[in-house]
Amino acid sequence: MSKKYVDLETLKYLLYDVHKLEDLLSRERFQEHDLESLDLFIDSAKEFSDRELYPYFKEMDATPAHFKDGAIIVHEQVQKVMHQSGEMGIIAACFNYEDGGLQIPSSVFHAALYIMDAANNHLPGYPSLTLGAAELIIEFGVQSLKEAYVPNMLSGVWGGTMCLTEPQAGSSLSDITTKATPTENGFYKISGQKIFISGGDYKGAENIIHLVLARIEGAPKGTKGISLFVVPKNRLKEDGSLEYNDVMTVADFQKMGQRGYCTTHLGFGDSDDCRGWLVGEEHKGLAQMFLMMNGARIAVGRGAAAIAMAAYRTSLQYANERPQGRKLSADGKKNPTEKQSLIIEHPDVRRMLLLQKAIVEGSLSLVLLASKYHDILTTATSKEEKEKYHLLLEMIIPIVKTYPSEAGAEAVDNGLQVLGGYGFCTDFSLQQYYRDIRISALYEGTTGIQSQDLLGRKVPMQNGKGLELLSAEIVKTIISANIDEDLKIYGTILGDKLKQSQKILGHLTPFALKGNYERYLADANLFMEYMSIVVLGWLWLEMAVDAKKQINNADKKYSETFYESKIHTMKFYFKYEVPKTNSLAESLMNNEVLTIKNDKELIL
Amino acid sequence: MSKKYVDLETLKYLLYDVHKLEDLLSRERFQEHDLESLDLFIDSAKEFSDRELYPYFKEMDATPAHFKDGAIIVHEQVQKVMHQSGEMGIIAACFNYEDGGLQIPSSVFHAALYIMDAANNHLPGYPSLTLGAAELIIEFGVQSLKEAYVPNMLSGVWGGTMCLTEPQAGSSLSDITTKATPTENGFYKISGQKIFISGGDYKGAENIIHLVLARIEGAPKGTKGISLFVVPKNRLKEDGSLEYNDVMTVADFQKMGQRGYCTTHLGFGDSDDCRGWLVGEEHKGLAQMFLMMNGARIAVGRGAAAIAMAAYRTSLQYANERPQGRKLSADGKKNPTEKQSLIIEHPDVRRMLLLQKAIVEGSLSLVLLASKYHDILTTATSKEEKEKYHLLLEMIIPIVKTYPSEAGAEAVDNGLQVLGGYGFCTDFSLQQYYRDIRISALYEGTTGIQSQDLLGRKVPMQNGKGLELLSAEIVKTIISANIDEDLKIYGTILGDKLKQSQKILGHLTPFALKGNYERYLADANLFMEYMSIVVLGWLWLEMAVDAKKQINNADKKYSETFYESKIHTMKFYFKYEVPKTNSLAESLMNNEVLTIKNDKELIL
Repeated sequence: MSKKYVDLETLKYLLYDVHKLEDLLSRERFQEHDLESLDLFIDSAKEFSDRELYPYFKEMDATPAHFKDGAIIVHEQVQKVMHQSGEMGIIAACFNYEDGGLQIPSSVFHAALYIMDAANNHLPGYPSLTLGAAELIIEFGVQSLKEAYVPNMLSGVWGGTMCLTEPQAGSSLSDITTKATPTENGFYKISGQKIFISGGDYKGAENIIHLVLARIEGAPKGTKGISLFVVPKNRLKEDGSLEYNDVMTVADFQKMGQRGYCTTHLGFGDSDDCRGWLVGEEHKGLAQMFLMMNGARIAVGRGAAAIAMAAYRTSLQYANERPQGRKLSADGKKNPTEKQSLIIEHPDVRRMLLLQKAIVEGSLSLVLLASKYHDILTTATSKEEKEKYHLLLEMIIPIVKTYPSEAGAEAVDNGLQVLGGYGFCTDFSLQQYYRDIRISALYEGTTGIQSQDLLGRKVPMQNGKGLELLSAEIVKTIISANIDEDLKIYGTILGDKLKQSQKILGHLTPFALKGNYERYLADANLFMEYMSIVVLGWLWLEMAVDAKKQINNADKKYSETFYESKIHTMKFYFKYEVPKTNSLAESLMNNEVLTIKNDKELIL
Repeated sequence: MSKKYVDLETLKYLLYDVHKLEDLLSRERFQEHDLESLDLFIDSAKEFSDRELYPYFKEMDATPAHFKDGAIIVHEQVQKVMHQSGEMGIIAACFNYEDGGLQIPSSVFHAALYIMDAANNHLPGYPSLTLGAAELIIEFGVQSLKEAYVPNMLSGVWGGTMCLTEPQAGSSLSDITTKATPTENGFYKISGQKIFISGGDYKGAENIIHLVLARIEGAPKGTKGISLFVVPKNRLKEDGSLEYNDVMTVADFQKMGQRGYCTTHLGFGDSDDCRGWLVGEEHKGLAQMFLMMNGARIAVGRGAAAIAMAAYRTSLQYANERPQGRKLSADGKKNPTEKQSLIIEHPDVRRMLLLQKAIVEGSLSLVLLASKYHDILTTATSKEEKEKYHLLLEMIIPIVKTYPSEAGAEAVDNGLQVLGGYGFCTDFSLQQYYRDIRISALYEGTTGIQSQDLLGRKVPMQNGKGLELLSAEIVKTIISANIDEDLKIYGTILGDKLKQSQKILGHLTPFALKGNYERYLADANLFMEYMSIVVLGWLWLEMAVDAKKQINNADKKYSETFYESKIHTMKFYFKYEVPKTNSLAESLMNNEVLTIKNDKELIL
C-alpha cells in the first residue's frame, strides 16, 4: 500500500492559504512560532505517521484490543505512540508554556492529528483523550492536582480518559448515578460504573487518569448536580510512588471498527477504596466537561474527515490503476477490440471520486475553520472579538462533529463502491475504513444529539446571534464571489440557500415560542443536514474564490491544474449536493406531523 | 434474541391482499395450488428458518467460510440447509412438474426465501444459486444434461454456481478469456480462471455444478462470442460414478460481511482435463445467462430487503425496551425527576424507525411486484400479455436489484444508529446486518451497472414502451387514490413526479440521439434514484389505497391500527423521501458537465 493516505498539498493549501494561518501568528500567544517552524511540526507528524501509525493500520484491526484476565490487551504500538507523542510535543502542543505546553495554534495541532488519524485512526485517540483530560485539570484543577498529574500526561507516560456514560443512562447524562462521598481528607470516595470508556485501560500503562462525572451525595437531580473528579487508576502516595486506587476494568466492548482503540467498562470503588479529587466547583462538572467536549467534538469530526480522506486516496489509486470496460462510442456500443479504459475514465466512477473529494476536502476545511475559530477565541484581545468567536465556534461545533461523520461515511461508501467486489474484501482497506468511520456518528454525542444541540441550543442562543454571525461570514464570501463573472452564480445560489434557512426557521420557531419544543425539534436532523450543506457550500465557494485569485498569479504556489481542480470540485458540490437543500426544506416545512408520539397507536 | 426477525403479517398482507396472489392461482400452471397450501409453504419456510437458519446467524459470521488445504471449509449448517431445502421442495419450487418441480408461483417462492434471508442471509444463497444453475440447464440444456445433473441439484445433494467474473475483466464480460476447445467426444475442454464465485466449493459437497461462461476458440470478440457450459466439479462417468473434472479451488475471498457464504476463486483445466458441455447455442451464452440473471437480481434485492427487515425488527425491539432521556416539556427543558422515556417515544428515534419501515416494507412490496410480473409473464396466455409483462419486468429488474440494496443499507444504518453505541458493538447484531447488506450493491451487477441498464437499455427499449407501460400501472393507482379525499393529494404528487421524469428524459434523450451516450448516461445513478423513489411512492400509495378500503370493512383481516400504520408510513414516505426527487431532478437537468473526462487535466 502506498503512503498516500493523505493529500498533504491540499491540507497545507487549506491551512496556509485559505484559512490564512499566518494571520494568527501575529497574535501574542503564537509570536514565537513562524510558518516555517509550524510547517516542520506538520511534516514531522507526517513522518511519524508514516513510520509508527500507518504500518499498523491493518494489523490493529486484525488483532483488536481485548479484555483478558482483568486487563485490556492492546497492540504494543499504543505505548510507543503515546510515548513518542509526548516526546514530540504532540500532547502538549496547545497548552501554555507555563503548563509545559508549546502554545502551538489549535489549527496546526488539528492538522497534525488529522494526518495521524488518516494514517491509522486506531491510535491518535490515546494521546488525544489524554490531552483532553489534562486540559480539564489545567483549566479547573488546583495547583496540587496539576503538579501531581499533568506532567506525566503531557509526556505520554500516563494516559487520560473522560468517563461520562453509564449503563442505565446512555446519552442522558442527567441520569448518571456514580456517587462521590466527601471525606475529611480532601478527597471523595467514588463508586459507580462507567461504560464506553475509550482508552480506559491497557496492560502496561503505568497509570491512567480518569476524569469522572459523578454526583456528590445530596446533589440536585439532573445535570445541575453533577461534579467532575480526577480519579487515577493508581493514586500518588506522598512518597511519590503509586498505589492501586480501586478502579477495576470490568470488561471491554468488542466493536465493528476502530478495533485497536479499546473501549472499556470500568468499575469504581468496588472495594470502597476509590479516591477522587474534585476538579473545579461542585455541581459544575458538566459545564466544565463541555469545555473539553468542544475539543473532543472537533476531534471526532477531524477523525472522520481523515478516515474519509484515506479511503478516498485509496479508491483514487485503485481507479487510476484498474482497467475495465470501454468508453461508449457514438452508436452507444462498446468496441471490444479497443483497449480497456482505466475505470477512472468512466463518468460514474469520476462522479464517485469527485463526490468523495468534495466531501473530504470540504470536511477538512470545516475542521480547520472550527479550530481557527478556537484559536481566535482563545487569543481574543477584546470582549467583542471573544464574544463573536465564542458564538461562531458554538454554531460550528455540532456541524464539525456531524458533517464529516455522516457525509464522510457516505464518501467512504462511494470509495468502497469504486473498488467493486474488491471493496468488500478484507484484502483491501476500504472495508476497514467503512467499518471504522461508522463510530463517528455515535460517540461524543450522536448525530441526533448534535442536531438537537444545533437547532435547540445554538440557533436560539442570544436571540439568534450565532446564526447571524455565521451568516455574515458566509455573506462575505458571497460578496467576493460576486465580483467574479464565473463564480457569481454560485454566490447567488448560496445566498438563496441562506434566505431559505431563514424561511425554515420562520416556519419552525413559532412552535418553540408556543412551547411545543418537541415539534420544533422533531426534524432537527434534517435541519442539521440543511445547514451542513450550506456551510460546506460556503467553504467550497471560499476555496474557489481563492483559487480563482491565485490561478492568474505569476508566482503561484501550486499548479494551474491544482487550482482549476478546486474550482471544478466546487462546481460539483453545487451541482450534486447543494440541490439537496431543496428537498430538505420541503420536508422541514411540510406540516404533517408523523414522528411525534400521540394517543393514536402505531404499529411500527 | 427474539425470532421476530421478520414481520410475517405484513409479508402476507402484501402477498395476498396488495399483490393479490389469488388472482394468479386461476392460471393453469398454478391450478393445483390454493391459498391454504401456499400459506403452509410459507409457514414451513418460517419454521425451517427459526430452526435451521436464525440460530446460526451470528456463528456463521464469527467462523467464516475459509480456504484450507485446497478446500473451502464452511459451517456444517450449509449442507444441512442444502439437503433440507431439497427435501422441502424449496429448490424445486418453481420448476415444471415434468422437470421435478412443484409449479409454485415465483412470488410465493420469493416470499419464502425472503424469510430465510431475513433469518440468516449467509445460507439461502447456496440453494438459491443451485436452482439458478439448474434453471439454465432445464431451459437450454439437452435432455442428457438435464438427466445427468438436474435431479441431484433439485434435491440439494449437489450445489450449483454461476461463473462469470474473471480477474482481468471484472464487470466487463466482453473481456472474459476462459477458453472452450471443442473435442470429438461431444464435450469441450475448458481452461481459465473465475473469481468471486459464490458457493463455488465447499468441503463435503458431493459435487458442484458450475455454469460457466467461456469463449469457444475462434469466437467473435466481445459479448457476442460467449457461450455457456455445464462444468461439474466431478463429472459423471458412464457407470454413474463421479470422477474429478479438474476444477480446482485456488483460493477464497475473505469479506467484510456475509462471511458464511463462501466466495471462491476457481481454476478450470489446470491439468488440461476439465470437460464442459455446451448449454444451448454457441455464442448465445450471455443472453441465456441473462435469463437467469433476472432471477438472480430479484434474489439480490430480496436478500437486501430481508436483511433490512431483520435489522429494522431488531432496532424496533431495542427502541421498545430501552429507557433513556425524557420528553421535552413546555419550557424546552427536561424534568430529571420524571421517569425516563423509552427511546421509541423520541421523535428522532421514531423518524429513524419509520424511515426503516418505509424502506423495508416498500422494498418487500417491490420484490413481490417483480416476482408477480415474472409469474404473469411465464403464464401469459396471449402474445400481448407476454409482451406487456416482459417489458414491465425488464423495467423493474434493475430497480428491484438496486433500491433494496441502496436504501436497505441506509435503513440498516438508521437501525444501527437507533442502538447508539451498542449498535457498533459486536454483541448486537445491527453491526452484522450493516456489514452483510453492503455486498448487495456490488454483486450481480453493481448499482452503476444497474443504473446504466435502466437508463441505457430499459428506458429506450421499443421506443420507451416499457416506461410507458410502467407509468400506466402507476397511473392506475393514482386514479384509485383520486377518489379518496385523504389520498388524493398523494396521487397528485405522484403524478407530478411522473411528469417530471418525462421532463428529465426530455432533457437527456437528445444527447443519446446525437450519439453522445456518455453524456446521456453520466448521471444514470441519479436517474435510478429518481425512478426508484417514484416506484416506491407508487407502491406505498397502492398499499395505502388498499388499507383505506379495508379499514372500514367490518370483517377486515387485520386490525384498524395495522391499516392506519400503513397509511401513516405512506405519508412518511411522501414527506421525507419523495421530495428527494426534486433535488435529483435539479441535478439531472443541470447542464454543467463535470464527470466526463475531457482534455482538461484534473487533480483528483
